[in-house]
This record gives sequence, structure tokens and C-alpha cells, in this order.
Amino acid sequence: MTDTICALATAPGGALGIIRISGPQSLEILSNIFTKDLSKAPANSIQYGHVKDGSEIIDECMASIFRAPKSYTGEDSAELTCHGSRYILNKILELLVQQGCRLAQPGEYTMRAFLNGKLDLSQAEAVADLIASTNQATHRMAMSQLRGGISSELASLRNQLLHLTTLLELELDFSDHEDLEFADRTELQELTRRIQKHISQLAESFETGQAIKQGIPVAIVGKTNVGKSTLLNKLLKDDRAIVSDIHGTTRDTIEEVIDLHGVQFRFIDTAGIRQTTDRIEQIGIDRTYQAIEKARIVLWLVDEEPSESEVHDMMERCKGRSLLPIINKIDIDNRHQFSNIKSPIIKISAKTGQGIDSLEAAIYEAANISILGDTDVIVTSARQYQELLRVKEAISRVLDAIADNLSGDLIAEELKIALESLATITGQGIITSQETLNNIFSSFCVGK
Amino acid sequence: MTDTICALATAPGGALGIIRISGPQSLEILSNIFTKDLSKAPANSIQYGHVKDGSEIIDECMASIFRAPKSYTGEDSAELTCHGSRYILNKILELLVQQGCRLAQPGEYTMRAFLNGKLDLSQAEAVADLIASTNQATHRMAMSQLRGGISSELASLRNQLLHLTTLLELELDFSDHEDLEFADRTELQELTRRIQKHISQLAESFETGQAIKQGIPVAIVGKTNVGKSTLLNKLLKDDRAIVSDIHGTTRDTIEEVIDLHGVQFRFIDTAGIRQTTDRIEQIGIDRTYQAIEKARIVLWLVDEEPSESEVHDMMERCKGRSLLPIINKIDIDNRHQFSNIKSPIIKISAKTGQGIDSLEAAIYEAANISILGDTDVIVTSARQYQELLRVKEAISRVLDAIADNLSGDLIAEELKIALESLATITGQGIITSQETLNNIFSSFCVGK
Repeated sequence: MTDTICALATAPGGALGIIRISGPQSLEILSNIFTKDLSKAPANSIQYGHVKDGSEIIDECMASIFRAPKSYTGEDSAELTCHGSRYILNKILELLVQQGCRLAQPGEYTMRAFLNGKLDLSQAEAVADLIASTNQATHRMAMSQLRGGISSELASLRNQLLHLTTLLELELDFSDHEDLEFADRTELQELTRRIQKHISQLAESFETGQAIKQGIPVAIVGKTNVGKSTLLNKLLKDDRAIVSDIHGTTRDTIEEVIDLHGVQFRFIDTAGIRQTTDRIEQIGIDRTYQAIEKARIVLWLVDEEPSESEVHDMMERCKGRSLLPIINKIDIDNRHQFSNIKSPIIKISAKTGQGIDSLEAAIYEAANISILGDTDVIVTSARQYQELLRVKEAISRVLDAIADNLSGDLIAEELKIALESLATITGQGIITSQETLNNIFSSFCVGK
Repeated sequence: MTDTICALATAPGGALGIIRISGPQSLEILSNIFTKDLSKAPANSIQYGHVKDGSEIIDECMASIFRAPKSYTGEDSAELTCHGSRYILNKILELLVQQGCRLAQPGEYTMRAFLNGKLDLSQAEAVADLIASTNQATHRMAMSQLRGGISSELASLRNQLLHLTTLLELELDFSDHEDLEFADRTELQELTRRIQKHISQLAESFETGQAIKQGIPVAIVGKTNVGKSTLLNKLLKDDRAIVSDIHGTTRDTIEEVIDLHGVQFRFIDTAGIRQTTDRIEQIGIDRTYQAIEKARIVLWLVDEEPSESEVHDMMERCKGRSLLPIINKIDIDNRHQFSNIKSPIIKISAKTGQGIDSLEAAIYEAANISILGDTDVIVTSARQYQELLRVKEAISRVLDAIADNLSGDLIAEELKIALESLATITGQGIITSQETLNNIFSSFCVGK
């Protein structure tokens, strides 16, 4: 971190562009191509001037001056706001490199912020999520983590584990007195179980987090001509244009993405199934089953009463998922009372839009992401999830050790493994390997 | 201009984004959604804080504070640097509009800068050109105009015309003395002719400016299998990736764009002509002629001596263009001496790359854009060109009036028309119609 890095921090093609410079030589290097000497410029000031290549003016720019440690990276740094021409931006980067800057790696500014103690690792990861956020749900998850949500949860868990470890280690210091137990085994067991439950909840939140990031999968199933495509089109409304404007956010083959109340839903299409012969019908049913398998929510569209075996079959298939039975075409016939479907039935007309608001509300509710309050914590990074699983295993072994009435030092050993894994998540109190850092920050965009 | 406008000034999709706010209420409105009161924040300072929607934090941002008249628009304004998430940027714009901002029209910031006297009209137009510049040549043209190049040229022309007008008007004041001529007619004629020449040069520079903006058209012509495609590929080298990265800069159907010494050349392909029958051959020749018609530079590739009639024909076709005869395949035979081609012949091997550097230098020289020095002025806007033509016509009528020995007041009338058109170019000293302003600024991107 003794070198000075530079990168374009905005997407090319706008009216303005920002070039970020960070490192000990930032202001000296920038001064060499700027019409003003910035080396004495006050912190948090904006300096107007020209970037020059020899005598040729490249652009009129604003240089925002930041000084260590009060900057994003914790280093001396500058943000140069220029005109958004690719030629100008590339030319200025070229000049900076000529003057001794190095082009930054993806995420290198945030990595420096972490190494300088401005952020912990989980907060650093949240920065990438925040930039990638495309709706209220992903934004809230990222912001909660950036604000230290998960870090403070983990800090509280660590404190509890540390307390246990200290008590157990105290026993070791007095190991002459064989029967002395500072840590009451029953209390220990109870506290460990509480911690285990908490860790499990955090780990489980990962699945929800993934669903929110990638869009909660919803299958629309039902027989041909029951109105599946009409329903999908009605749900899409004007949202289609908005969602197709977002690139790189979905990681699966998807048909359509719809934003409902700030949460992204990914509709898995089962349209296009034609039942012409028995063999084809089977393929159609197989496809429906595949769609259900991928889904967290299943919209089962019917326009006539299904047989009891059909109802039974559908409920079996949808175990562990939210099944929403929907009667369509109420504009034609609104008198349906399907007695063999036990769950509440939503009645709609995909054609006229009647009942669509209620359906949207039901889909949102079925997603069960009330967890997304201001204070809730969701694990979003696969790395953090892996570490949590490691903590969980260590905690299980602690419980086994207590049950087996093993000695304090053996229990303490397992507790230490759990503590280390917890520390790895935030990167605090331990030396994080360069490889781990590279893995984390290489998924960032350049310029952040 | 009593309202406060906001817009995204960067392209969406980067690590950071800038939202621009300008107008009398800028700092009050921003304060309503920011964790700090910015209404008293000092000019040219950077304020760190959170943008909030009620109690929910939307983003951690930097607000750059500018105060009238020392800002781009000349108004109180702020630039909010946020994370580049589309969700965040849209949300903040939404909040600003809720608080009383209006979403800015394309070019509205620069229009305000013009109306507040920060820029003249030709400089304002240069801002759009600067943002669109993709190479050194277009960048230099725009920067020269932004630095007031054309404005000072026009100011000097206006002063000369004004001097003439004043002298002629003085004659009117002394109209009792019939024979009194303050403005010596011979001198007047000579000065007017000098002005006419200068105006003509400026108007002619428009064509060069257009060629530079759109890429200087070059046709590669020659018989089948003479190596046209090989040459094009050799010229493309690695530049191909660079130029295809640039969108919206070319306005014609083009085959390939190549950057030579910072100038963009547009190669009109005549490859793919197969001479199988006489009728097809004729189509091929017609296509070649069409390509020549569109070109400013013609590369005539040969690998055997053309007949005298072929040489004559080609020279006729290329009148008014730069014709570069090129012998290809010197790796096979380097002894060619084609006596019936009088102009200097460039010898190359498109296959091995031999002679390509000399060819590139010759193409650049043939483009004859040495005009692109630091101080040269090129007219790039069609609007300015139209006004210059109007000035030119008025000046012609002045010369006619002098030749016809008309009275001073009639000559002065024509001079005033010329002066008005000149003033229209920079928008100075006259009231520019809203329609003209809208025409100029609607071609801008939003946020500038």
C-alpha cells in the first residue's frame, strides 16, 4: 500500500466521470498534471483547474481533496470530476500512470479501506452488494450489513463465546483442584444451545438472502389455456421495461423478473405446454414439476375444479413451498366454489386485471421476507455462510463434549475454533490471508 | 430559472454516480434529505453525510457545495456523489423531486450557464462536443471552441465590421455635405474582401470539422485479389476493439473506423466485388465509383501496371480528392516501376506489413488537417455554419453595393445583417429565442 492507485469510478458514457486517486503520492502526482499545486490544498475542499498534457489542456476539472485518515480508503486521496468523454477519461488515466500511479485492481479502494481499519470485511462485502442493489430489498440487506448489522450480531455472539472460553480456561489454571468448575455445565449447555440457535438462524438467512439477491423464484403452473401467459403479462405491466434495464443481476436462466413492493420475483415460465398426445402430456407435466422444484412460491392457476387426486398430487409436489391456488377467468364465471381445495383461493381475472392486487399482496406475503425490517440481519455472502457453517459444527462439537462430560480444556479447544471462524467473517482480530482478500475484492467493480 | 433542477450526470452502472442539483433552492432541498444542514455549508466544500428517506438510510454520500455565481451554472448548486446502484440513484432523484426539484432537461445545466453569462453559445455547443469526443482530433476541436477559439475569431471580425459601420454611419450624420466620405471606398472594399476571405475560410472549416467528427472517409479501391481486405485488416491491427467500443459517434453506414495519429478515419469498403461476367464487372466498377464519391482520400491498390486509360480514368474520378496509388505485394516482387502513374507511389506488402507505416503517414498527411494546431479554429456546429453562410451572403451584398457605388446607409444596412448573424453564433449582445436555445441544448445529454 505504498503505491498510489487510480481508476475510473463511474461508468463511461455520461456527462461527467470521476477518476479516483488514492495513496501517499495522490496529491503530488495529481499536481503534476493539474494547473494548481494541490499538495497544500485543504482537506475536503474542491479545487477547480485544468488537467494538462504539457501545454495542451485535456479538460476543465474539479478535484475533491481528501486527507488521511479522513477519506474512504484512509489514505490521502482525490476524486477528479471530469467531462464524461472516453477520450478525456482514458487520457487522464494515461497521464496519471505516466506520473507514477498504478491502475487499481477491482475493489482495491475498498480493500485499502479494510486494511486501514475503515470497514470490517463483512462491511466491505456489503459495499459491492450496495452498488449492485437494484431494488429496495437488496438495497436494505446491503445497507444493513454496511451499517454493521451482521458485525454487531457476530460481536455479541463472540462475546458470549469468549466468556465461556474464559471460564473454562480459568478452570485449567486451577487444575490442581480437580473438582473445581467455574463454568457450570448445565448453564454452559444452555448458553451454547442459545448460541447454536442464533448461528443456525443466521445461516438460514443466507438462503433468503440469496433468493432476494437473485429474485424469489415463482412458478406459474396450470393446464394449457388456463391463462398463465395472460397472468404473467398482466403482472409485468410497465415493470418489464424497468427490469430488463438491469444487467448482470440475475444469475440463472430466467423468463421474467417483476418487482413487487420493492422485492424482485423471478417468474419461471411453464407456458407453451401443449397436451396433444399422452406422451407429450407427460413431458408437459414433467416440465411443470421441474418448474415447481426451482420455485419457492407456486401459483396454481385453474379455471375448473381439479380432481381430488390432482389436488393431492399438487400438494405433495409443493411441500416446503408456498402453494397459492388461483381461480382465473372470474370475468366469465364468478361462482366457483372448489370444495376440494382447502387453502384459501385467490380469485382473479388475468384478462381484466380484477383481483391482481390481492394476488400481488399474497405473493409478497408468501415470500415471507418480513425479516427485512430495518434491524434484521441477513447473511448474503457465500464466504460468510461457509464460516457460519464452520462455527455451527464447532458449536455442535462443544455440545457433544459437554454431553460426554469431557474436560474443560477440550471444550475450550472447540470454542476457539468457533471464535476463529466468527473472526474470519468480519476479518477482525486476525490476519486475513492475501488469497482470501483477493477472492473477496476481485468480485468488485474497478474504481471502488 | 427560478426552479431547482436535478439529474443524474454520470452513466448508470459504475461504482459511483453523481447527481447534480442546481437552482436557488438547491442547498435547502438537499438539506431536507441529508443528515447535515447544508444551507450554511461553505462554498467549494465537501460535506459527508447520509441521504435518508424518513428514517431509512438510502446511501452514504459526499455533497460538493457550490455557491452562485462561482458554479458551473452560475447558481447555487450541489453535486452528490453516491454509490452507483441504479436503485439508489433513482431513489435519491425521487426524493429530490418530492422535495421540490424538477428533473432537468437535456443540456439544461449548460443552458443556465449560458443564460447566466458563464459561457457564450458557441462555447456551450463545444461542451456537448467535448463530452462526445472520442479521439485527439475531436477533443482538440471541442476544447479550442470551449476555450473561446471561435468566439475570439468572431469578435475580431465583428470589430472590423463595426468599425466600417461606424464610419458609414458617421457619413449619414454629415449627410448635408454630400461629397464627404469618411470611409474611403477603396479601403472599404479591400477590408471587406479580407473579411469575406476570413469568413469563407471559417465556413470551409466546417466540412473539415464534419469529416473529423464523423471520421475522414477513405475508399480502398482496386481489382479483386489485389489485397484490399488484407490491407484493411492490417490497418485495423488492435485498433478495431478500441473503435468498436465507441457508440453513437458515427452517423453513416460504415465498414471500419481506424484511429491514425489521433484522427479517426472511416474506411469505405469496396471489397467483395467479383468480376465474373461483363455485367457484374460493371456493377463492381459502379460500386467503386460510389465509394470514391463518398471519400476524401482514395487508396488505389494495384499489383500490376494499370493501362494508361485506367490511370486517366481513375484520376478523372478522383478529382477534388487525394489519390494515393499503392503497389501491393512487394514481398513477392519489389521491382515494379510503373511509368504511367505520375504521382508518388507507395510500395507495401499488406501481408507482411512492410511499408504500412509510410502508408499511414501518407493517409494522415492526405487528410490535410494540420489545421488542428492548438490555435486553429474549426466550425463544428451546423447552426454556426448556417449563420456564417448568412454573414457571407451579406458581405457579398456589401461588396456589390460598393461596386455599384451605392450610398453609405445602404451598405451599412447590409453590414448590420452580417453583424447580427455573427452575434447569433455566440449568442452575445442579442436575445436568443427560446426555440434556438431548445434546438441547441436538446442534443445534449441529461445532466450537463
